[in-house]
Amino acid sequence: MALAVQKFGGSSVADADRIRAVADRIARTRRAGDDVVVVVSAMGKTTDDLLRLADDVSSVQPGREIDMLLTSGERISMALVCMALADIGIDAASYTGSQAGIVTDTSHTNAKILEIRPGRLLSALAEGVVPVVAGFQGVSTDNDVTTLGRGGSDTTAVALAAALNADRCEIYTDVPGVFSSDPRVVPNARRLHSVSFEEMMEIAATGGKVLALRSVEFARNHHVPLYVCSSFTWEPGTWVIEEDPLMEQPIVSAVTCVVSEAKVTIIGVPDRPGVAASLFRTLADELVNVDMIVQNTSTEGITDISFTVPQNELAVSRAAAERLAPVIGATSVLVDENIAEVSIIGAGMKTHPGVTAQMFEALYGANINIEMISTSPIRVSCVVRQEQADEAVRVLHAAFELDRA
Amino acid sequence: MALAVQKFGGSSVADADRIRAVADRIARTRRAGDDVVVVVSAMGKTTDDLLRLADDVSSVQPGREIDMLLTSGERISMALVCMALADIGIDAASYTGSQAGIVTDTSHTNAKILEIRPGRLLSALAEGVVPVVAGFQGVSTDNDVTTLGRGGSDTTAVALAAALNADRCEIYTDVPGVFSSDPRVVPNARRLHSVSFEEMMEIAATGGKVLALRSVEFARNHHVPLYVCSSFTWEPGTWVIEEDPLMEQPIVSAVTCVVSEAKVTIIGVPDRPGVAASLFRTLADELVNVDMIVQNTSTEGITDISFTVPQNELAVSRAAAERLAPVIGATSVLVDENIAEVSIIGAGMKTHPGVTAQMFEALYGANINIEMISTSPIRVSCVVRQEQADEAVRVLHAAFELDRA
Repeated sequence: MALAVQKFGGSSVADADRIRAVADRIARTRRAGDDVVVVVSAMGKTTDDLLRLADDVSSVQPGREIDMLLTSGERISMALVCMALADIGIDAASYTGSQAGIVTDTSHTNAKILEIRPGRLLSALAEGVVPVVAGFQGVSTDNDVTTLGRGGSDTTAVALAAALNADRCEIYTDVPGVFSSDPRVVPNARRLHSVSFEEMMEIAATGGKVLALRSVEFARNHHVPLYVCSSFTWEPGTWVIEEDPLMEQPIVSAVTCVVSEAKVTIIGVPDRPGVAASLFRTLADELVNVDMIVQNTSTEGITDISFTVPQNELAVSRAAAERLAPVIGATSVLVDENIAEVSIIGAGMKTHPGVTAQMFEALYGANINIEMISTSPIRVSCVVRQEQADEAVRVLHAAFELDRA
Repeated sequence: MALAVQKFGGSSVADADRIRAVADRIARTRRAGDDVVVVVSAMGKTTDDLLRLADDVSSVQPGREIDMLLTSGERISMALVCMALADIGIDAASYTGSQAGIVTDTSHTNAKILEIRPGRLLSALAEGVVPVVAGFQGVSTDNDVTTLGRGGSDTTAVALAAALNADRCEIYTDVPGVFSSDPRVVPNARRLHSVSFEEMMEIAATGGKVLALRSVEFARNHHVPLYVCSSFTWEPGTWVIEEDPLMEQPIVSAVTCVVSEAKVTIIGVPDRPGVAASLFRTLADELVNVDMIVQNTSTEGITDISFTVPQNELAVSRAAAERLAPVIGATSVLVDENIAEVSIIGAGMKTHPGVTAQMFEALYGANINIEMISTSPIRVSCVVRQEQADEAVRVLHAAFELDRA
């Protein structure tokens, strides 16, 4: 008998029909002989609706109260899932983050899990009861209600799977797994049967929205096999697992794309030690998430520095750069929002030189100019014009033959 | 500096505008120099909406999960009230039933408060923070979420006022206090400046919907002065306080009416010991709330027994009576839903004989037949035809001159 953690996202519990379908899935797993711990998100767009309500009421929104507000959402969905299970004869009980023993730090709206005390969940399992746990929430060391931030329910599921030593963590969502590229852009994109944790982290970091980066990282660190699957079609999904060193890895598994970044370039920077440090320290102090950084080769002691940031952090980044430019003796600051970052990802890249060259050739063949480049051992990313992004993705998907099984 | 508990019902926090008005009221109380502990209900019709959702999902609705579901409602309203307070510069923090130390028994959906551990609320007050507490909910001795049933938020407010030794408990609602009768029936009904706990309990028990009986009883037992006031007009309300033995009491304070009851009559009951006992034991075992009971004088060893019950308990009461009738040798069972119970209530009645006669004369003068009578030291109730109920209320209101200050 195996233990599965099954996590159902907001679209999977959006209405009464979907909740009954979720209960049915849980029942099947139980009938197959496995134990189940369920994790649910708030129904559909509940979280957005609550945040809108908060905006209507007040411009001052303390994090502690936002957390109190938002955690109402999972209470509703988990109680309803328990009732739907009761309706088909399965004993279930709901547990808040606090009751499930999910202890976090005190960072409201973006708390980190410190510890899991799964005593009540283990008791429930021992009694044959299916625990249904509120995703996204915990209780702080100060006994206040906290939330885990973006992708928090996935993190709850993976952390519980690790704490309970579960055999797998199944993430049910509105897409049927991880694809070789976005099917809306590349019609012949294929569902991947499995990807390694490392590949999945790169996919999540470069535009693949199926899983939050943080939960994949947690799963990798705690060796929790993930399974991503659609709760609408229930067709076979994608496994996210440890890389098998004995198996040959695909050279390139997926092509991803991010269009939500912007590029900032500081022109005419004197090329002396400490200049880059002071720039990126300033940005770090503003909590800007800098992605790619490129510094041109210096010509006569003067260089340009470009970096990309999320568009919603552009204003603060630009202000910081413009504040710093005169201090470091730079000429001017340029901003470009019309960019896209296209990436190829593959675990086999590590052992196959020439992949980068093949990528550049494919883009060149389609007359797509590359503006910035960054690489990791299993990823190559290029910044291109945003209007050429879809074409770049399709060209790369074809060049690496990702439509073939 | 006094301490006030201020409770705002569902209609008082129904939308963003009302929530801001509530925050403003709390701010005024604070500026007047008093400390405040706030208790809120769920917004508007939230609870009804959630119960409808539960019906859509499942016909099996375990009490534990209903409680988990419904307690989401106060989380939303209290977080929003805290934000609205923050918006006008007042430090506030929300507390769930559990965080406020409201410990209950394990009777889901209808829990009783066992103990209040107000440590966190006292700390908040000491730090100048306004605690905003979720009404209606607590935590059981098994660490599960519980709700207090009908009128639960009023009970929370009164229980907190008692535990915190508050100077008063203010109940804000959508009506401006307690009236000498229902203003929709009696246009010249007056707002009462004050009523005694005993009068208020009789009013609540006989159709006055302003306060739940249970919370008034709790307030009386713990000597908590109540103040009932409208959160829409903020005009002066009604005090519910200890009877002052030195003051002369009004003979009749209020006329109330209940139309939601039904009468069951068992015909031809042999008049021997134990028959009534077995009937009402049977009803008690079915958890039926029997209100009035009348047994006619026996004629030739045969009598009739009539009793009234809430209409929603009529089916089970009728079934019990029909089951029992042949066993005790009774002839038949009659049911009458077309009744109303009209009551006069007044603390001065105790010391003024003749009030009952005056009531009967007034009804007789209006040609209204009395079908059943029951009395307490400060109340006389008559069952009349339902279509004569409004007329009976108006006649009695006039007869006892309740329109005069």
